[in-house]
Amino acid sequence: MKAELISTGTELLLGQTLNTNAYYLSQKLSSLGINVYYHTTVGDNAERMEQVLRTALDRADLVITTGGLGPTVDDLTKQAVCRVWDLEQEVHAESLERVKAFFVKLGRDMPESNLKQAYFPTGSKVIPNHLGTAPGALVEKGDQIIVILPGPPAEMRPMFEETVEPYLKDKTKSAPEFIKTRVLKIFGMSEAMVDEILDRLLIGQTNPTVALLAKTAELHVRISAAASSEQEAWQGIWDLEEKIRHKLGDKIFAGGNLTMAAAVGELLSRAGMTISTAESCTGGLIGGAITAVAGSSAYYLGGFNTYSNDLKHKLLGVSRETLEKYGAVSAQTAEEMAAGARLKAGTDLAVSSTGIAGPGGSSEEKPVGLVYVGLATPEGTQTQSFNFFGNREGIRALTVNGALNWVRLYLMQGRAN
Amino acid sequence: MKAELISTGTELLLGQTLNTNAYYLSQKLSSLGINVYYHTTVGDNAERMEQVLRTALDRADLVITTGGLGPTVDDLTKQAVCRVWDLEQEVHAESLERVKAFFVKLGRDMPESNLKQAYFPTGSKVIPNHLGTAPGALVEKGDQIIVILPGPPAEMRPMFEETVEPYLKDKTKSAPEFIKTRVLKIFGMSEAMVDEILDRLLIGQTNPTVALLAKTAELHVRISAAASSEQEAWQGIWDLEEKIRHKLGDKIFAGGNLTMAAAVGELLSRAGMTISTAESCTGGLIGGAITAVAGSSAYYLGGFNTYSNDLKHKLLGVSRETLEKYGAVSAQTAEEMAAGARLKAGTDLAVSSTGIAGPGGSSEEKPVGLVYVGLATPEGTQTQSFNFFGNREGIRALTVNGALNWVRLYLMQGRAN
Repeated sequence: MKAELISTGTELLLGQTLNTNAYYLSQKLSSLGINVYYHTTVGDNAERMEQVLRTALDRADLVITTGGLGPTVDDLTKQAVCRVWDLEQEVHAESLERVKAFFVKLGRDMPESNLKQAYFPTGSKVIPNHLGTAPGALVEKGDQIIVILPGPPAEMRPMFEETVEPYLKDKTKSAPEFIKTRVLKIFGMSEAMVDEILDRLLIGQTNPTVALLAKTAELHVRISAAASSEQEAWQGIWDLEEKIRHKLGDKIFAGGNLTMAAAVGELLSRAGMTISTAESCTGGLIGGAITAVAGSSAYYLGGFNTYSNDLKHKLLGVSRETLEKYGAVSAQTAEEMAAGARLKAGTDLAVSSTGIAGPGGSSEEKPVGLVYVGLATPEGTQTQSFNFFGNREGIRALTVNGALNWVRLYLMQGRAN
Repeated sequence: MKAELISTGTELLLGQTLNTNAYYLSQKLSSLGINVYYHTTVGDNAERMEQVLRTALDRADLVITTGGLGPTVDDLTKQAVCRVWDLEQEVHAESLERVKAFFVKLGRDMPESNLKQAYFPTGSKVIPNHLGTAPGALVEKGDQIIVILPGPPAEMRPMFEETVEPYLKDKTKSAPEFIKTRVLKIFGMSEAMVDEILDRLLIGQTNPTVALLAKTAELHVRISAAASSEQEAWQGIWDLEEKIRHKLGDKIFAGGNLTMAAAVGELLSRAGMTISTAESCTGGLIGGAITAVAGSSAYYLGGFNTYSNDLKHKLLGVSRETLEKYGAVSAQTAEEMAAGARLKAGTDLAVSSTGIAGPGGSSEEKPVGLVYVGLATPEGTQTQSFNFFGNREGIRALTVNGALNWVRLYLMQGRAN
């Protein structure tokens, strides 16, 4: 099956939005054994949208559009599909109810323009959108398929996974190549370091292939395998993953979609331990990361964002002397913060952060990127210092992962003993 | 000048590489006043590459290609240009020397295949590449221009900035069109609602144009103006912005790159007031957002992430009775959390959050998305309830912006009095 992706939106052509939809859908289609031959991006213009759609239908079996499903006049995708395939638009009762219910829930009147979102090309199979008011549609004609999806990735992705992916799996049952991908996530090593360590492993490695991707505050090793069955593709990945794990050991903090916080959460749950946080330079982001995991209330009781010195003293009991003598950004302060949080929150563990996130606040001895992390445990409290490189956002993200990674390593040791 | 971008590389179609080149070049061209009408991505295939190039030359004055300049057989861009414009390839002596010198520097023999990188379509202006072995080229025919650049962003970007940008600046001097863009950010209104309110303003509005973009937890109104001078373009934007502000009033929380937290920070600084946070469902993200702003220590003293009921009581003094009678997700709890944080942190203001972020934890009376926010001020403590729609991540992001937006509205009232 040959596929083509059409992304609509003037914001893409102005360089205001990065086209992550084409990236995501390409990965997905590729893993289904569907060949993507072209990506096209076009603005919110009826004539050009129609022309691009015609071109795509001249050369592809499957066309997936993203964007252009909003309630406004420059949202044109469904009209373009109707024009190209000579279809009418008809109302979809269930979607109309959904849109109405959405506004009832909001306690607001529904603007007339939202009605448009319940109309679809005749014969469409509607793709429900649980996170917004723009449902998508699957439209078939002869051997060709057009899949219409909304532009916001947070809405588009679950719609693809829930409705389009099973539909396409069914369509491509006969297609004999499966591409599977798995990501291993690493903290605390640069791309060049990992490249050097994996070097011999990767020479002549064509299937599975391995790629390194530097992400904010972590590095991803992506393994992709192609085979004539899913099982065989996964087997190829697992074999290579084992070798990579052997080389990188506990530098790998998670595999697949698992985040650092979720990996720590699993270890805390298994150990039956609770944790609290005491944050300065991260201002709440460690707690925010931990609680991004559903069910985190089982092990995260809470935390303190002590941004001022006064609150470090008052809430966590960091001594005035420590703050004066060593400063807020010091191993001593990180230690007393963690110990204080553990005591005040009554948790088994507590993790603290204090550092210079920049751009201001640095000195010769304490440069931007200097961060202390404290870890309080039943065995006592320890600290670690980091010299992170990056802007304010990057340094804070590295601090979150650095702190959580230390909790992870502590819990893994505990499990090993 | 109408432009089209062609990205070549099978890795893009497989979803192994995110197309940041199209994003970067779109921004650059847009700032030069050049309109990008299409992006096309095509694999390393001679026939399809040629076809895409022909289509682009049918509709654009300027075509920029990235990728396909490597030494291997599947690097086809220059051949495709020669075929489409009926040109020969000839060796460029300086580039040949450069490629040779590059390998001398590496201390390696030059593979034969690298010779290819010193050949260019007849009449090309060569674009030097200081970071790799693939130079680019500028090729003109009649009024049309093809710019050939390599795929790796680290090589492509400096080549564009050093050679292509000055060249295009010179070319567009006579066609003096500048496009400027400004974003106004809105909280608490849907795309359709804003569309309805702005309706009359937008009918027949072709320059500046206005587009609405739904982002996580906020809505962006993008105004773009084209004019023969920068000044004139900005004037067009300011005039329309004034009318939009008149219609949307304080629903607009910020303009340009300002975030919600930065807007609140500015108001707090001006009022000389301090704030603290008391977070449950956001688990630290409100503090994290506030402290993402450099210099926020001037007004943010700290906060409490009270995820467990026990810590809501112990740290913030929420009464056991309230927690039992009304539950943790209630207006009463939000109120006592905010009041408690204000008292314990000794700040002028405090803002609290408690809600059902999902996917678990909901009941019939308390569905996923129900969030209470409390605001404690010198005048007393109030609460607001929200019914947010989305997944866990979306509801938490909406809660952060909802809470901060309320602080903003409070401070704006204070300023008006």
